[in-house]
Amino acid sequence: MSKYTIGVDFGTESGRAVLVDVKNGREVATAVYPYSHGVMDEKLPDTEIRLEPDWALQDPQDYVRVFQNTIPTVLKESRVNPDDVIGIGIDFTACTMLPTKADGTPLCDLPEYRAHPHAWVKLWKHHAAQPEADKINETARAMNEGWLDRYGGKISSEWFFSKVLQILNEAPEIYSAADRLIEAADWVIWQLTGTETRNSCTAGYKAIWSKRDGFPSTDYFASLHPQLATVIKDKLSTDIRPVGERAGGLTEQAAQWTGLKPGTAVAIANVDAHVAVPAATVTEPGRMVMIMGTSICHMVLGAEEHIVPGMCGYVEDGIIPGFFGYEAGQSCVGDHFAWFVENCVPSAYEQEAKERGLDIHQLLEEKAAQLKPGESGLLALDWWNGNRSVLVDVGLTGVLLGTTLATKAEEIYRALIEATAYGTRIIVETFQQNGVPIHELVACGGLPEKNKLLMQIYADVIGLPIKVSASRQTPALGSAMFGAVAAGKGLGGYDSIYDAAKVMAHLKDETYIPNPEDQGMYEKLYAEYVILHDYFGRGANDVMKRLKNIKANARK
Amino acid sequence: MSKYTIGVDFGTESGRAVLVDVKNGREVATAVYPYSHGVMDEKLPDTEIRLEPDWALQDPQDYVRVFQNTIPTVLKESRVNPDDVIGIGIDFTACTMLPTKADGTPLCDLPEYRAHPHAWVKLWKHHAAQPEADKINETARAMNEGWLDRYGGKISSEWFFSKVLQILNEAPEIYSAADRLIEAADWVIWQLTGTETRNSCTAGYKAIWSKRDGFPSTDYFASLHPQLATVIKDKLSTDIRPVGERAGGLTEQAAQWTGLKPGTAVAIANVDAHVAVPAATVTEPGRMVMIMGTSICHMVLGAEEHIVPGMCGYVEDGIIPGFFGYEAGQSCVGDHFAWFVENCVPSAYEQEAKERGLDIHQLLEEKAAQLKPGESGLLALDWWNGNRSVLVDVGLTGVLLGTTLATKAEEIYRALIEATAYGTRIIVETFQQNGVPIHELVACGGLPEKNKLLMQIYADVIGLPIKVSASRQTPALGSAMFGAVAAGKGLGGYDSIYDAAKVMAHLKDETYIPNPEDQGMYEKLYAEYVILHDYFGRGANDVMKRLKNIKANARK
Repeated sequence: MSKYTIGVDFGTESGRAVLVDVKNGREVATAVYPYSHGVMDEKLPDTEIRLEPDWALQDPQDYVRVFQNTIPTVLKESRVNPDDVIGIGIDFTACTMLPTKADGTPLCDLPEYRAHPHAWVKLWKHHAAQPEADKINETARAMNEGWLDRYGGKISSEWFFSKVLQILNEAPEIYSAADRLIEAADWVIWQLTGTETRNSCTAGYKAIWSKRDGFPSTDYFASLHPQLATVIKDKLSTDIRPVGERAGGLTEQAAQWTGLKPGTAVAIANVDAHVAVPAATVTEPGRMVMIMGTSICHMVLGAEEHIVPGMCGYVEDGIIPGFFGYEAGQSCVGDHFAWFVENCVPSAYEQEAKERGLDIHQLLEEKAAQLKPGESGLLALDWWNGNRSVLVDVGLTGVLLGTTLATKAEEIYRALIEATAYGTRIIVETFQQNGVPIHELVACGGLPEKNKLLMQIYADVIGLPIKVSASRQTPALGSAMFGAVAAGKGLGGYDSIYDAAKVMAHLKDETYIPNPEDQGMYEKLYAEYVILHDYFGRGANDVMKRLKNIKANARK
Repeated sequence: MSKYTIGVDFGTESGRAVLVDVKNGREVATAVYPYSHGVMDEKLPDTEIRLEPDWALQDPQDYVRVFQNTIPTVLKESRVNPDDVIGIGIDFTACTMLPTKADGTPLCDLPEYRAHPHAWVKLWKHHAAQPEADKINETARAMNEGWLDRYGGKISSEWFFSKVLQILNEAPEIYSAADRLIEAADWVIWQLTGTETRNSCTAGYKAIWSKRDGFPSTDYFASLHPQLATVIKDKLSTDIRPVGERAGGLTEQAAQWTGLKPGTAVAIANVDAHVAVPAATVTEPGRMVMIMGTSICHMVLGAEEHIVPGMCGYVEDGIIPGFFGYEAGQSCVGDHFAWFVENCVPSAYEQEAKERGLDIHQLLEEKAAQLKPGESGLLALDWWNGNRSVLVDVGLTGVLLGTTLATKAEEIYRALIEATAYGTRIIVETFQQNGVPIHELVACGGLPEKNKLLMQIYADVIGLPIKVSASRQTPALGSAMFGAVAAGKGLGGYDSIYDAAKVMAHLKDETYIPNPEDQGMYEKLYAEYVILHDYFGRGANDVMKRLKNIKANARK
């Protein structure tokens, strides 16, 4: 008799449930619910209350509606008996956080706070807390806080305490009214189980927590703002639970929402990128997972603790229990090509694509694939959206070099692909040089499905084989795997994520193997990339920052 | 009773005659004749004989057809009595050269040579003589030839002896059969007057001749190729005549071709760019003329002889008798914008231009004009076609820096305009710093008519006022002015080009004055340009050449 688990992946625009066969990882049914309020970046719903630039909010009830809509749908479509669904796991964007009362009621659901922007969920890409991030970083440097090294020397405006401090600075009444400040990931688990839990992944990667040292000190928080001194005791929980544990069982109410049995095992919450790692078959050191979409998130496990310059962070037990989970990132990959197609592709190409029934990306890929490495004479720096790793510098901008009157669109397109590949290689080498071995890459996400040329170029540039996850929805699969671990072997699941990964996670047969000839050409081009990378990125010529400064003053 | 002269301007694709009123420079009638064989860069006419890459030939009979077609037309249209046409002048692209027999018959007109590519006219943009140019430069450096300094340290593959040496290397039988090797400019004057003359402008700028030192030595030529030792004595003429002189009178045959009177005064030949200087009112030092089209040619007169690094050349009496004529150049200006429009403008812009009845350049100019200096955050190096002055390096390529995901087409367009303006500023400052004063710019050519934004940006970047020639066909007007000087005052013309310029050349009322606020912003941006210019252009990072080298080997 087959047993099943359900993984629910909360993305930026929608939530997705996947019902998975525990014995082999087969994805039996999928359902997607687009959030009715989507991303709120202009005004609050049903009001004329405008939001400032860089704000991005969500409605927590949209998350509940994901459960109410998608789980009944996958049950119905798969015809699986709810009695055979033994567990449920979720993953979420992060840091996506909200203020609630002690019973978990979001402040934005209370009439007295509904018109207040700070009462709503702050989505990961809410970027309005940069002044607070600056303050957090400056203060940490001044106080010589040891945890700063764990995050490549810099905390992002997207992260938990940047957002908390913005609430306190701009809306102290909301800060006071909040009994809890909580990741949306943990909040949805609370809605399913009736019990507040906190997961090690968001706590570690987004909220400056570590298994050994806990949160920063009361003194440090007091230096940021007097009222923040007791934030941990007052608004958070120090009971941080490792991913892979059982958070609790489904409540009667959640069972009604979903059509599942009350008491069904629910896993501790997880993050969309990190949960993809075991779903891409990786539960051991040495194999770096790349989640490739608009940006790339790189994750690799290490048996030892190492400070690697310019990574996003590392967390013990943050991805897989028993390992240090190292994370790095490139902020502009798929976004690069989307920008290029929207802004730089001449109409003759659009016409040709239309006539041949191709997507414009397909046409560009086809034309770019005709080129040999180095044939365009072009070289780019992939910093259209700054550099996340290893330079950790949002002030950097893009470069295209080598243009002539014969330069064609497909040559620029290929140069942008190559530039992102060089950027990944620098990350890989930085890990390797700092004690975190990498001998294979495993890709998942949207890009590997869409662009074979890109995958081959990455293999040739980096000089490592690249395997591709078989699942097209690795985060939801990963969540379903953690659901099976939460249920445990006794109920038909697994005792550990290692065991789950062995049977539920799969790779495609196809592997991208470096082509020695192209690899040789790319060695030369990469050497040129590194020279420019260091010249513009490490202070020899800060022209990009000066231009940004000139730009900021141009309209004054 | 009004007197008239005719200027004939031989361009790349066509010849143009303008009939001008001598007393005020009024352009009474214009006629254009497109060469029936145009630019031959694929095969010889009426044959299947293919040309190698980088070849560009013309048919000398096309030039005769220009006289036969355009002069009767302007006479007819203007209803001017041929008795009142007192002179004729011509200007030509250069170096455009051909081999002929002693009587001036082009070798390509003889049946035995007609199928031989080297028997035809080599157009200025015939670029297949680069190995010969390299040999000329290496040998000159090795032999410490003093004349090399007059040409910024380097001879171009476009110039006279590069082309001559290519003929000798690749087709010694054509070299032997040629009694004369001659600029097409001088050859058409020969056809009008029946007498061979050589002009100081092409001899000086393109054939390593100077008034004081003559041609390079026999020893030098012998070092290039034993048979070249006596090239000057055998195939050229050392009787070089200054521009402004009378070459002779129209023959009976030329009178029949044109409908003019036999004996009508014909001026010594000139070059299209150089002849535009007096037509733009400039006959004195301090005012630099910019002929702005696909590229920019910069010309300025100096009372003294100075070595200015990186210029194209300087020739005593080369532009205006009595002065040193200094020339510099930018190889890619209008070409930049044409490349951009063809390769980088998205279809939404083309659609908008179409709907609003605008040219795509007009639309881009309109959008770019909304931007403040520095607002785009972009900076470009204008080297899409190498750098002619002051780096004299065809191995350099373009750079675009500062791109983000918000970068728009009009921002790149404006950045390219600004880059060409910075390039001009470097040329202006290099002249100024080396003893050739410049206090005003005078523009002529196609670009000033088309793009006011560009003109204002140039004024703001360079910090000098820019005036614009009133004539839209300055070379032809300049040739007509030299025609009036050839006729002389006695016949109703002028005794000197200075006198002619005073009444025949005019400026528009409009002057582009630097805007102090924008000038201040451009000071900062120009400083950044100079840093990148020197970093990539003066050897700190030869990445562009290494990429070109990689490119050359990519397909092998």
